[in-house]
Formats: sequence, structure tokens, C-alpha cells
Amino acid sequence: MSERIAVVGVGRMGANMARRLQEAGYSVTAVYDARPESAEALAKELNCANPLKLEDVTALADVVITVVTDDKAMHQIFAPRGDSLLNNAKGRIFINCATVSPAVHVDIEKRARRVKASSLEACMASSINQARAGTLYLMVGGDSKVFERAKPILDALSDQGKLLRYIGRAGQAAQVKALVNMVMNINTAGLAEGLGLGSALGLDLKVLMEVFSQTGANSRVLVTDGEDMLNRDHSCFFSAAHAAKDSGIAYALGQQAKLELPLAKAALGQFRKMVKVGLGELDKSGVAELTFKGRGPRKKRSASKKAKR
Amino acid sequence: MSERIAVVGVGRMGANMARRLQEAGYSVTAVYDARPESAEALAKELNCANPLKLEDVTALADVVITVVTDDKAMHQIFAPRGDSLLNNAKGRIFINCATVSPAVHVDIEKRARRVKASSLEACMASSINQARAGTLYLMVGGDSKVFERAKPILDALSDQGKLLRYIGRAGQAAQVKALVNMVMNINTAGLAEGLGLGSALGLDLKVLMEVFSQTGANSRVLVTDGEDMLNRDHSCFFSAAHAAKDSGIAYALGQQAKLELPLAKAALGQFRKMVKVGLGELDKSGVAELTFKGRGPRKKRSASKKAKR
Repeated sequence: MSERIAVVGVGRMGANMARRLQEAGYSVTAVYDARPESAEALAKELNCANPLKLEDVTALADVVITVVTDDKAMHQIFAPRGDSLLNNAKGRIFINCATVSPAVHVDIEKRARRVKASSLEACMASSINQARAGTLYLMVGGDSKVFERAKPILDALSDQGKLLRYIGRAGQAAQVKALVNMVMNINTAGLAEGLGLGSALGLDLKVLMEVFSQTGANSRVLVTDGEDMLNRDHSCFFSAAHAAKDSGIAYALGQQAKLELPLAKAALGQFRKMVKVGLGELDKSGVAELTFKGRGPRKKRSASKKAKR
Repeated sequence: MSERIAVVGVGRMGANMARRLQEAGYSVTAVYDARPESAEALAKELNCANPLKLEDVTALADVVITVVTDDKAMHQIFAPRGDSLLNNAKGRIFINCATVSPAVHVDIEKRARRVKASSLEACMASSINQARAGTLYLMVGGDSKVFERAKPILDALSDQGKLLRYIGRAGQAAQVKALVNMVMNINTAGLAEGLGLGSALGLDLKVLMEVFSQTGANSRVLVTDGEDMLNRDHSCFFSAAHAAKDSGIAYALGQQAKLELPLAKAALGQFRKMVKVGLGELDKSGVAELTFKGRGPRKKRSASKKAKR
């Protein structure tokens, strides 16, 4: 645990990962965010630095974990010139946890190698509570030797490595992550249609969900999202906006491969529609707002956090 | 077990239900099929009658189980005039197991009442092997008193009633069944897209399936259909043609309710496409033939039966 760790991008996920690593005995030396006030508050909590320059983050750490918004943010923090995590980065390991396009991970790995640093992608298939508890499901892509070096840190985030999967070379973990979320989003949007139609037909939705759970209609999202769809409890674990982003990444991969993916397209359409009508910050279970009669964007939904899961 | 039972429609499901009921100690007195040679062969096996007229079936039985193809076949066997199961049907119980439109069950119940007979819908969410073993998942709709009278027979088909669910009035079990299959078909078509895209990207599909199973992408169809999609083993448990029919019933209910169901529509499109290109008799897992590169209708697929499940 001699490595000094910095975290770049301290939204709900990144901040909880920093808290978890400090709790696990690691020295968290710096945090950074595009919104300096976020980094400042967390730095106070963790008693660490909050540099305003990216190159100062690199100077303070051996391992830099990044959890930023999108492809563009990744290119900015790893800019080839100007202020960048890559300045004087020789020997550093970058662990990139955001869901971004697979090609971005390949590109960042090249950029890191050029300055004699290393990078990994560690794609997460879990949410905020798991980040805090150190029980994230992590899919890792990149050089296997770099993976071995980073493994103790990754273990501390993934239930002592029980939820850690090495997938393959750079980009492949991000591809798997995109596919996971593509299929999950299809199942979620499909479940919302089944329950919405059941409601319109006047069926007992508790009985309907029970039958789903005992038949070929069963799925993980039935367990995680079914009741929330009935109760309109769409406080956010994984937002519709994120679902739209991830389905968009997967759908783009399909287009590049010249595949027809009508279900993926339909699910992407639903989550993009949520964003368009102002429901993007609801949990993905909020897709039921589009399929139940009498629901929809005009009714205000609370977005308060909830404790369960 | 004093009731005499007849079975109308002795395809793979109906024939196995007849075998099972005889094995369970019931007196199976008659079998009937639109293709007389099917009924004749089974009648020899079960040592029972195979009348060529529907009214003779009714004369020979107290309880008539029907497992016919579609709405049209239901209207034919329960015709209000001419040869019909309804002729001299006073006191009979009809148990209708085919997947047909919910409104048909409501209509048949009315017709049965008019001649002082009773009817139930017993919709099945299982397949051929379960019919033979008497372990069908049965969702029952109709009058609850009729259900109580028929319960011992239904128990013999549903693992001593462990898999028996009374849903509600006539038509409601068929609605639930349509929703089960609608959601199942969406999940199946979506899984085929995830695996097809994973294949196009050159990912290890065993690893991909394992990650799916451990994340929000998990589903019942991943267990039942995932490996078959990889191995192109589409011997038939539940045909694509049936999937198209059931998704069509559900989608029509959605249109009547004026709901937008883009995922249901996309899945219906995929299974209808399979029928159109000559893949309708493959198992529903064969939808992967539409999403994997280099697969498709031009490659011949075997449709042999397989023993597992």
C-alpha cells in the first residue's frame, strides 16, 4: 500500500472510490475535478491536496484513477500538450474507470506509452453504493503486466478481487461494458413495456411480476427495476442519460460492424427520448414513464437519493 | 379420477399432455386432430377412440382439453352450428391451452355457458418436455368455481399444482401469457444482438456470457438460449413462428390500448422476419441467425429434436 493514489473526476462514483481506498489503507494524496468546488470539498474530507492543474495531480501520485464524463473529457485530461495528466508522467499508472468509447482507451494507452506511463481501463458494472463499499464489478482491459501491478488497488475496489475480471487488451473491457449495458437497457425498456401494457389491461401487476419471475420473462432488471417501475420510484442509481450514452456507444460499434440491431436501436430511442423530454436524470427504471398510461414528463418526479441496494 | 378426458389438437404438446394424464391414472377416452392420422396414431398408443367428429369427442368425455393452433382453429372447434364440441355439451368442462387472443377465451366462455358447459383457459409457459413430465407452468383464467372443479386435472399437469397459478377472469391468463412471451421475446432478440455484436468485435463469447450472467444483463433467456445462439443449435423448443404469433397478440393488445411499444415492435419485426426468410421453424434462439455476421437464411440448419431441457 505504498502507492500514492489520486482521483480525477470526483462525482458520486469517483468520490466514493477515493473514500473507499483511503479506508482500505491507501494514501490518497490528491483529488481533482473540472468543478474545483467538488474537489475542494472532498479534499477537506480526505485531508489531501486538490491541485488546480492536472500536471500537479500527476506529480503527487503513483497511480491516477480517472472517472470522467465522456470521450471529450478523457481527451482533455490526457491532452498531448498544455496542462495534462501526461506531463512528467513517466512510471505512472492511469486506471480509467469512466464509460467511454473503446477506441478512446486504445488511444489513451498509446499516449501513455509515449511518455513511458501505463494505462488500464477498469469499467464498472455497478453503482454508487458499491463504489463506497469497495464491491464494484470491474472489467479490466489493457496490458496484463500492468494489470498485475495494479491488482492490489483494483482488489480493494472489487470485494477483494471477487468481482474483478481481466477481459483482454485495451478497448475490450469497454466493449464488454457497452454490450452489458446495451442488453441491460433493452431488457429494462422491454420490462417497462410489459408492465405498462399489463397496467393498461387492468392486470394485477404484483401477480404479473411474480409470473415474469417464474418464467422465460425473468431477468436481473425485473429484480432491480420492476418494483420501482410500479411505484414510480426513479431516484437515480444509473440515470437514463447514462443509459442513452452507453447504448449509443454500443449502437455505434454495431454500425461500424455493419450489423442491424433493431432492439438496441429501439432501446436507445427510448432513453434518448427520456433525455429529450427532460427525464434524463431519472433512474433508467424511469423508462416506465414512457410506457404507462397517464405518466410522462409533465408529472414531476422527485430525484432524491435512496438508501437501498 | 373418475372424469373421462379427451384431448383435441394432438401436436407435440397435446399428445404429451394426453400421455401424462393417462400415466397419472386418468381415463383418456378420445383424441382428435385436424390431421386425422395424428389422432389415429396416438389413439392406438393410448388405446382410446379417435372420432372424426367433434361432437363425438364431447360425447365420450367429461373434460375436453384443447391445444389447437390459433384463434381461427378455436372458433372452428367451438362453432355455434354444424359439427362442434358444443353439441350436447351440457355439464362438460373445456380446458383451453393454446396461446390465442385473450378475447377468444372470453368469447368461448360465453359460447360454452350458452349450452350449459364451462370453460377455462390454461395457458402454458413451458414446452414439450414439461408437458410429458407433467411439470407445465400453467396460468389459468375463468370462473374460480370451474377452476376448483378442474384443479385435480390441472394439478396432474403442473407438478402437483406447484406450477399452477390462478390469474383471474376469462382472458386475463391469456393476457399475462402474451406479456410473458412479449418480454421473453424482447430479451431473446436483445441477447442475440449483444452476442452478435460481441462476435463481430472478436470478443471471447464465453467470457461475454459469463459477464452478462454476473451483471444487469442477466436474464432467464441467457441461461436457456445463450449457448444455443453460440452453437447455432436451434432445434425447436419454442419456434420463431410461435414467438411471432405471441408477440403479435401482445402488440395488438398494446395498439388497442393506444400504447407505444417500440421494443415489442422491434422484437415482433425480428421474429416475423425469421418466418419471412424461411427460419420460422427454428427455435426462437435462431433469432441469432439474424444478428451474427455470416449467418442467415441461406445456410441450412438442422431442425432435429434434442433431448436436453
